[in-house]
Order: sequence, then structure tokens, then C-alpha cells
Amino acid sequence: MRKFAIIVAAGSGTRMGNETPKQFLLLRGKPILYYSLRAFLDAYDDLEIILVLPEAHIEAGKEIAQSTGAQQRIQFTSGGDTRYQSVKNGLSLVKHPSIVFVHDGVRCMVSQELIRRCYITAAEKGNAIPAVTAAESIRIESTDKNESIDRRQVKIIQTPQTFHSELLRAAFEQNYEENFTDEAAVVEKSGIRIHLVEGDLSNIKITLPADLLLAEHLLPS
Amino acid sequence: MRKFAIIVAAGSGTRMGNETPKQFLLLRGKPILYYSLRAFLDAYDDLEIILVLPEAHIEAGKEIAQSTGAQQRIQFTSGGDTRYQSVKNGLSLVKHPSIVFVHDGVRCMVSQELIRRCYITAAEKGNAIPAVTAAESIRIESTDKNESIDRRQVKIIQTPQTFHSELLRAAFEQNYEENFTDEAAVVEKSGIRIHLVEGDLSNIKITLPADLLLAEHLLPS
Repeated sequence: MRKFAIIVAAGSGTRMGNETPKQFLLLRGKPILYYSLRAFLDAYDDLEIILVLPEAHIEAGKEIAQSTGAQQRIQFTSGGDTRYQSVKNGLSLVKHPSIVFVHDGVRCMVSQELIRRCYITAAEKGNAIPAVTAAESIRIESTDKNESIDRRQVKIIQTPQTFHSELLRAAFEQNYEENFTDEAAVVEKSGIRIHLVEGDLSNIKITLPADLLLAEHLLPS
Repeated sequence: MRKFAIIVAAGSGTRMGNETPKQFLLLRGKPILYYSLRAFLDAYDDLEIILVLPEAHIEAGKEIAQSTGAQQRIQFTSGGDTRYQSVKNGLSLVKHPSIVFVHDGVRCMVSQELIRRCYITAAEKGNAIPAVTAAESIRIESTDKNESIDRRQVKIIQTPQTFHSELLRAAFEQNYEENFTDEAAVVEKSGIRIHLVEGDLSNIKITLPADLLLAEHLLPS
């Protein structure tokens, strides 16, 4: 099937205490986003990327795309106020029935094995959401109490969240809700059962300065 | 009130791919365990430590205790096959009604502010469990389905888990159950309501080589 990766890098990233959005910070001399693009470009020769960026950073994104040498496979669009709107903007550029990967631009350590694992399950079952099991004790808190839960039941969700395009498109016709913090929640709300696949502990999201150090360490030399 | 810290360092630590148990690995030239001891010794002058170690490593633990210069405030006991049993062994050395901190030996970045926050709430309410809110999307998986949950409800539990000693002792009279993965679960099972306090993102558990790097980075220079 045709393959699109919507890479969401629409954040303005202030948690790093830094003017540069996280996706543009350098890791071994290249922007984080470069590695995210590279992983998807290399996973499948026929995959196309839709890169969602803040309007003000589209030019910077185009330079990174050039540096991959595969800029003809990369389209651009601007992000919205929410992740939901950013993904919806990207999805509007998917013109063919396909498998769509929705990926956090700052998860630059994603492996080709994980991308392929998601593709295979999504092609077969309609969707594939990578997840890892919680390693620490977890409690669930509600208004008036909190209670322990078996940590093996707690799945920490990663990306690429991967879907048949038409199923994703139908889900994104729903009105926005506040709990639409990831695509799985949007698709689930449309009545579709979510399929988890095994994620990868090294598929980290770079949101704090220390994550950059960890990424330096994890990157093959 | 009197104060005891049961520091649990009974693991033989093979996940590091290393013969040395994690609690003895060096961080800026000192064993991880040294920093955990230091944090509790410095938090309260009248606090005593009960250090739970694998039988084979008690001598090594005594050397670290010597290096703190406060070895007269540190007792030793050997660990059991489970965390439950290790804590129970430590608890048997608490001879007075007191506030008991149960702490992971490999959480060497614990701050004195967090120790004091736990003390204050435990003294007032009987227990205090430090927790941080999940930063990523979470799903809860059961036998036949998985469903999204508001991440703000998902609390990642840290240590020191802090209790009135007599409440903890009563809870540890219960027969062992497989889901007793932390002390909060044991105490909750005895019918006591658990009180969460705000944990600390830098209060990491050192279980992977990358965590050591992160700790190097977080340690004040």
C-alpha cells in the first residue's frame, strides 16, 4: 500500500528553556528533526512525508528536508493550535488510500524495525499503536480517591501511531474533544478498536535537556 | 517524632549488563548508594538508617556507611526474595513508634525537600507517597481490550514511601500477595487510604546505563 508519514513538529517548545523549538535542537551536529525524517525515508522507498511545522519555521524545515537529499518526497504544512488540528492539517494532504504513520517529530530515535512492525499490524488490522509497559508502580487518581493498578496493565503510548488513511480520516471528522491527546484516542472515539504493538524503550520523546544527553548516548556511533 | 529510613538495596542488578549491583555503581567517583544515604542523613539529624542489602554485599555496604562519617546512625540487614520480604526484614529493626521512610537505594537523586514533604504529610495523615503525573499518553490494557485514560489521572509512584511505623507494621502482618510491588499497595490492602504528595522528576531510579548519564547531568556540580 501507499505510505505517508505525518511528522508533527508544530510545537514552539519552551520547556527546554530555549528559544529554539525542540525539533530544531542539534544532536551530533544535525537537527533532531533530521533523524526523524531519515528514519521514515529509509524505512520504505515509496513512503512520502508530510511535515507539520509552525508557520514561522517552515523555511527552516525545508532546509532540513534538503539536507536529507530526498526533499521531493517531503511536503509541508503548518500546524494548528492543538495536536488534533495539526494532524488534521497534515491528513488533508494525504490524497490516496494508504497507511498513515503519525509521528512525533521529537521522537528522533525511532527504529526502522518499529516503523515496519507498525506497518504490518496496521495493514492487517487497520491500526497499530506502539506501547511499552510501565516499569514503575502506578496509581490511578480520581476525584476522591487513588488506587494501585497492576503496572503490567499500564501501557505508555509512543508513536508512530499507524492507521489506514480512510479510518483516520473518518475519525478526524468528529468534533474536537479535550481528551484527544493522541490519534488513538480520536480513532477509539469513532468506535474502532485499538491494536497495540510492542514499542521500544529507546524511542524516547525529547522534551527535556536531559533527553538530548540520553539520545546522544543511544545513537549508534 | 523519631525517624527511620529503610533503604532497600537488595537487588543483584543484572539489567545493567554488569556484575556489580546497580546500587554500587559509581557516580562521580562515589557509589550510588552513598548519595542515597547522604540525602537521608542530611535531611534530619535524628534520623537513623536501616540499610537492606544482599547478604553477600553487607561488607561493601559497611564501607560506604563508613565513608559517610555517620556510620553510628546506620544499621544493616539482609534482603529477602521479594521487596516485601526485604522491607519486612528492615522493619523488624524499627524498635520505636516513628515515621518510617522506605526508599529505593538506587534513587540517589532524592532531594531533602522531597524527604521533608513526605515527612510532613505522613506525620499528619499517616502516610505519604510521592508521585508524578504521566507525561505521555497512557492506555490501560485488560484481558480483552485496551482503553485510553486521561494521563492526568495516571500517577507514577516514587519513593520514599513514608508511613507511621505502626500502620506499616500492621500492614506487613498480612500474607504476601503478588501485587505487593510497593509499600503503598501493602498498606492500601490493609484498609488504609493512601495520600499522594508531589514527587520530583529528577528523583529517578537508576536501572539502565543511560540513567547513570542522566544522574551525572542532574547532580549539582
